[in-house]
Amino acid sequence: MVSLDPDDSVVVLAHEQFPDRAKTAVGVLRYADYDVTAVLDRARAGERVADHVPDVADAPIVERMADALEFDPDVLLIGIAPIGGGFDESWRPDVRAAIEAGCDVVAGLHYFLEDDEEFAALAADHGVDLIDVRRPPDDLTVSGGRARDADADVILTVGTDCSTGKMTTMLELVAAAQERGIDAGFVPTGQTGIMIAGWGVPVDRVIADFAAGAVERMILDAAEEHDVLFVEGQGTIVHPAYSGVTCSLLHGAMPDALVMTHSAGREAIHGYEDFAIPPVEEYVDLYESLAAPVAPTEVAAGALDTRAFDDDEAARAAVEEYAATLDAPATDPVRFDADEILDALL
Amino acid sequence: MVSLDPDDSVVVLAHEQFPDRAKTAVGVLRYADYDVTAVLDRARAGERVADHVPDVADAPIVERMADALEFDPDVLLIGIAPIGGGFDESWRPDVRAAIEAGCDVVAGLHYFLEDDEEFAALAADHGVDLIDVRRPPDDLTVSGGRARDADADVILTVGTDCSTGKMTTMLELVAAAQERGIDAGFVPTGQTGIMIAGWGVPVDRVIADFAAGAVERMILDAAEEHDVLFVEGQGTIVHPAYSGVTCSLLHGAMPDALVMTHSAGREAIHGYEDFAIPPVEEYVDLYESLAAPVAPTEVAAGALDTRAFDDDEAARAAVEEYAATLDAPATDPVRFDADEILDALL
Repeated sequence: MVSLDPDDSVVVLAHEQFPDRAKTAVGVLRYADYDVTAVLDRARAGERVADHVPDVADAPIVERMADALEFDPDVLLIGIAPIGGGFDESWRPDVRAAIEAGCDVVAGLHYFLEDDEEFAALAADHGVDLIDVRRPPDDLTVSGGRARDADADVILTVGTDCSTGKMTTMLELVAAAQERGIDAGFVPTGQTGIMIAGWGVPVDRVIADFAAGAVERMILDAAEEHDVLFVEGQGTIVHPAYSGVTCSLLHGAMPDALVMTHSAGREAIHGYEDFAIPPVEEYVDLYESLAAPVAPTEVAAGALDTRAFDDDEAARAAVEEYAATLDAPATDPVRFDADEILDALL
Repeated sequence: MVSLDPDDSVVVLAHEQFPDRAKTAVGVLRYADYDVTAVLDRARAGERVADHVPDVADAPIVERMADALEFDPDVLLIGIAPIGGGFDESWRPDVRAAIEAGCDVVAGLHYFLEDDEEFAALAADHGVDLIDVRRPPDDLTVSGGRARDADADVILTVGTDCSTGKMTTMLELVAAAQERGIDAGFVPTGQTGIMIAGWGVPVDRVIADFAAGAVERMILDAAEEHDVLFVEGQGTIVHPAYSGVTCSLLHGAMPDALVMTHSAGREAIHGYEDFAIPPVEEYVDLYESLAAPVAPTEVAAGALDTRAFDDDEAARAAVEEYAATLDAPATDPVRFDADEILDALL
């Protein structure tokens, strides 16, 4: 369990990548309960969060952790990840300063801070925690095929690619459902979702044989707390590298309904440009026919990321076309709101 | 790399499970190049391998490692695995005796012998190796989507369930192809295959994000050595727990053709009896439509495990029906031979 609570005051490290390449930092700013008191980005020191991301709580952007100490932070959170998930040595002075100031440090890297000798020794000296949210629990095991028995409605996002809004859609749906008085819970499966929610298992980091089992365990646990679960999906079923994770999520979660996410205008798999994105109808068939023998489900709604369009009218037209293709209600839950999707699900 | 070579003299531990529940032991007896000089099974001590498995090289069955030392072994190989892949403490005296006699010990358990303090210390004292074939290399990474560029024909087994003969079919095909003078190689992806071949990565034990990448690396490496690769499949695409591994193999290997394995008469997923095995035609559609957006392929032949039938005539009829359903040539490559499949593939 990640020790982040709503009373924490959090500094988010996003050096040289805020906001466009700092997906975790922006996700945390937008959705986490806790207070972000400063962002570290040496390329933007002196600017403010509101200059770049207008619709979240504002905070100053400072050069380094030493400059953020005046805000009396409890936590330093690493809000960016280089390709490969390594630790960038240029961040070391910030992490060191945070620990020495008594802050816990939260990271979602493949490189574990706990295994770094300097940080581990320093954290012990200062009595702070190093929290590697990407380290899975060591007692995971194979799925028992029991998620369909969960006493909750389970909704899962599936997508046409990575980075199509699977986490965002679920967080918007949780908020919209809660506004209607529904006891809705978010089930995080990736590092950003885990940092936002304060719990969860990073399914992509689990031993392949245990991936569906990790999902099953989260579903069964969360079903005891909530009536409706919104499960963060990962990757896409046609991804050359990550499809196995997507498949484990589909069969491990045994969802009652799927929400299909897509980024308007995207034509190839992100980072794998030789692999074309097939027509959306093919994805619907694939996800539904793959789910059917294990736990039948269907695509009940769509969420379209319309950032490619400047004006709302073009976005609205794209959403309508997407809904027609899916033969299900669709919207952009960030640009507009999540109500249409929620109506289709409940 | 597993240090087993054709000159090694190997003792296989299979206590209380030989032969029917000792899949690894029997696989090694049937297909490995090295010499099995004794089998340890305290429930059958005094009997012989030939009493139970008639078509492999015979060997005595003895009670414990101490009784096998007279055959001057080089290696003790753990040929069984309890559910969960743990180490059975009743085997400890045998492993100890092997190490003290200067034998390497090879195991495919989730429990790593190298991490056992007693065994590690003893192995250091005696200068022997503890070889945990299920420990993946620590430098794996994500797939680059490059297996389709491999300079070899790639054949993958896919199945209707676990334990339907995916490894066996590939080993029979490799042997049949080599008999025809074809430069064929076996690509092992599970612990038994790795023990037989002496190399390979246990794909089910890899970090989920890296599973397709592990397969890709093996394909690209093996394609430099051989003209045709026969890749051991795992699980089934409709498995409640293991489907993610199957999906990673399909997309990581990017095979030119698939061979579909099935166990005649099986109606439910092994160990998951609430999950029915769908009609074989559905599997063909699923595997082919899932592969298509990443690397198109098709089911070119079928391998039917006909052990459920006592007489060859009934087996032959079942094979014919299976071939008709698949709309592709099929046979039982163990009961009959692999030629029909090979003809369909080459």
